[in-house]
Amino acid sequence: MIFTKEQILKALSTVQEPDLKKDLVTLNMIKDVQTEGNKISFTVVLTTPACPLKELIKSSCIEAIHQHVSADAKVEVHMTADVTSARTSAGPMLPGVKNIIAISSGKGGVGKSTVTANLAIALTKLGAKVGLIDADIFGPSMPTMFDLEDVRPSVIQENGKNFIIPVKQYGVELMSIGFLTPPDHAMVWRGPMASSALKQFFSDCKWGELDYLLIDLPPGTSDIHLTLVQTVSVTGAIVVTTPQKVALADAQRGLGMFRQPQINVPVLGVVENMAYFTPLELPDNKYFIFGENGGREFAESNNVPLLGQIPLVQGIRECGDNGKPAAMQNDVIAEAFRELAETLAQQVAIRNASAEATKRVEIKV
Amino acid sequence: MIFTKEQILKALSTVQEPDLKKDLVTLNMIKDVQTEGNKISFTVVLTTPACPLKELIKSSCIEAIHQHVSADAKVEVHMTADVTSARTSAGPMLPGVKNIIAISSGKGGVGKSTVTANLAIALTKLGAKVGLIDADIFGPSMPTMFDLEDVRPSVIQENGKNFIIPVKQYGVELMSIGFLTPPDHAMVWRGPMASSALKQFFSDCKWGELDYLLIDLPPGTSDIHLTLVQTVSVTGAIVVTTPQKVALADAQRGLGMFRQPQINVPVLGVVENMAYFTPLELPDNKYFIFGENGGREFAESNNVPLLGQIPLVQGIRECGDNGKPAAMQNDVIAEAFRELAETLAQQVAIRNASAEATKRVEIKV
Repeated sequence: MIFTKEQILKALSTVQEPDLKKDLVTLNMIKDVQTEGNKISFTVVLTTPACPLKELIKSSCIEAIHQHVSADAKVEVHMTADVTSARTSAGPMLPGVKNIIAISSGKGGVGKSTVTANLAIALTKLGAKVGLIDADIFGPSMPTMFDLEDVRPSVIQENGKNFIIPVKQYGVELMSIGFLTPPDHAMVWRGPMASSALKQFFSDCKWGELDYLLIDLPPGTSDIHLTLVQTVSVTGAIVVTTPQKVALADAQRGLGMFRQPQINVPVLGVVENMAYFTPLELPDNKYFIFGENGGREFAESNNVPLLGQIPLVQGIRECGDNGKPAAMQNDVIAEAFRELAETLAQQVAIRNASAEATKRVEIKV
Repeated sequence: MIFTKEQILKALSTVQEPDLKKDLVTLNMIKDVQTEGNKISFTVVLTTPACPLKELIKSSCIEAIHQHVSADAKVEVHMTADVTSARTSAGPMLPGVKNIIAISSGKGGVGKSTVTANLAIALTKLGAKVGLIDADIFGPSMPTMFDLEDVRPSVIQENGKNFIIPVKQYGVELMSIGFLTPPDHAMVWRGPMASSALKQFFSDCKWGELDYLLIDLPPGTSDIHLTLVQTVSVTGAIVVTTPQKVALADAQRGLGMFRQPQINVPVLGVVENMAYFTPLELPDNKYFIFGENGGREFAESNNVPLLGQIPLVQGIRECGDNGKPAAMQNDVIAEAFRELAETLAQQVAIRNASAEATKRVEIKV
């Protein structure tokens, strides 16, 4: 029995990519179809290695072959990923970066940096190439969170110009003002100085080819935020909040900024952090210290996905203070961040398939 | 038996003001000495109505009269207060304000606004005249915390110029950008706009005679902070932090800013917030979610007083979200904030008695 490539592609064209709502063949996700006797093999190129539907898509492919080609065929599916990008018109700034994701909160202290660090680790563990810019010029926490407090990045010369090499730790490429200043040193800068530091993280650093570059923004809606959207084309933003009312008001301001017509960065979703506190010895007790489901309701009322609800667990803070983000471990916390990473990657893929590329903000704001 | 004023003052000159380390007569704290037969009455003018040593000083006075004048005298002590000020060379800006206290944190979300709101209430309850400026232009939370979300301040004309009347709630005079903008509206402003808003809170508002004007600063060390010290002479600053390492690093930056030679604002002390979490039904369980004693050690290593340790109690957040700060009640939380208010007032009095007036920062930073 000889199977043709056409038979196989026809069969696979019955398999839908559930998020993108088109079949795998139309989406050009099937590569490298080969047959040998009873054996059929092909590669499915996902839109992200962090795809939460990986197993579902794989089994759907096998089922489609068995149903439409031959019930006896021995099917071998290779799953791989080529992260999509809507930064095609990105211009000269960071052309090797497929997706720039701004992580914002409005209010400080809601755990935005902790979420960012763990998200970076979780995406890396799932196979993505990840970078992280600590844009909190006045309160850089990434050197502590990644155990890089005394590390200084190296510098190379190219065409007579110096470039900083981002520091690689736990597989993540990192840049922070904390690598360039003594620890605990106050950067008493007005906005233009801070903005200029951020711009240098883009223009004077040698970033590699990255699937996702996460930008950990400072609280508020001011210079750093404006400089970001004026310097690079941002794929999308996520908003981190705790469930409490005063945090939600600030989160609303943060989200409102991205939706202002002249800024217009798609909001990929909301992360509810410190959703509840669970003591280690009383895992069934959930204390809704900061209120219950505030983040979920906030996401609903703004018509954006709730990407995840992360509990307040002492271990997460301890891991951050000790320079080993909780997502590096294999436990319940790591699992929560893995799910968050998958949901985010999924939203990025949907955004890239459906929405226009974000333009760099050209007008003066 | 006739007692002379001299006898009485001589007796009272044996009583030390424990903080200021001088006797009450030298400090000019005894007024209105009167005698009638066996009765002696006088007034002790404290440096603050929030003086935690009030009862101690009162009983020391009675004891001194009994010991040095007459064991049988009937002593009546009136306790009053005239808050001291080191803002004598304050210039034209806010001449009726005796003390301007900047409340800073470095890191956001450590509960700085909650502490400020409760401190304002606690000082007011102790008899002080208190104002509060919400200088967190990008995340104003005072309208929510004081149940003033839909309130707009009134405006008066004087000499053809418009002045805003601060909103009075729970005895506190308040000003916030939140009174002038729709709720949840993002102020997407670069630094100069935000700074100009803060300046107007000083120059275009009709503040009354105030003992303490608290300034709730935004996170970071940037435009708003610099504009504050360039616009008014600040009595002192307090730093609010949680015990966690990344918060302490930012607190160090915040404290470092005030101690920079060109800024030079005295640091009055540190408040450790969210020192531990206590579930309502398990009051003996203390969960050190954010680490233990980080604030105390931070205060010690910077050689400043620890003004208080405030637990993470669900009720404090709920009160803030509901617009009735916890310090308004008569329970354990209110007690914690009363103690904090007393300790702060004490530090202000010591600072005013011992240190030179803070100068407005003249140089460009």
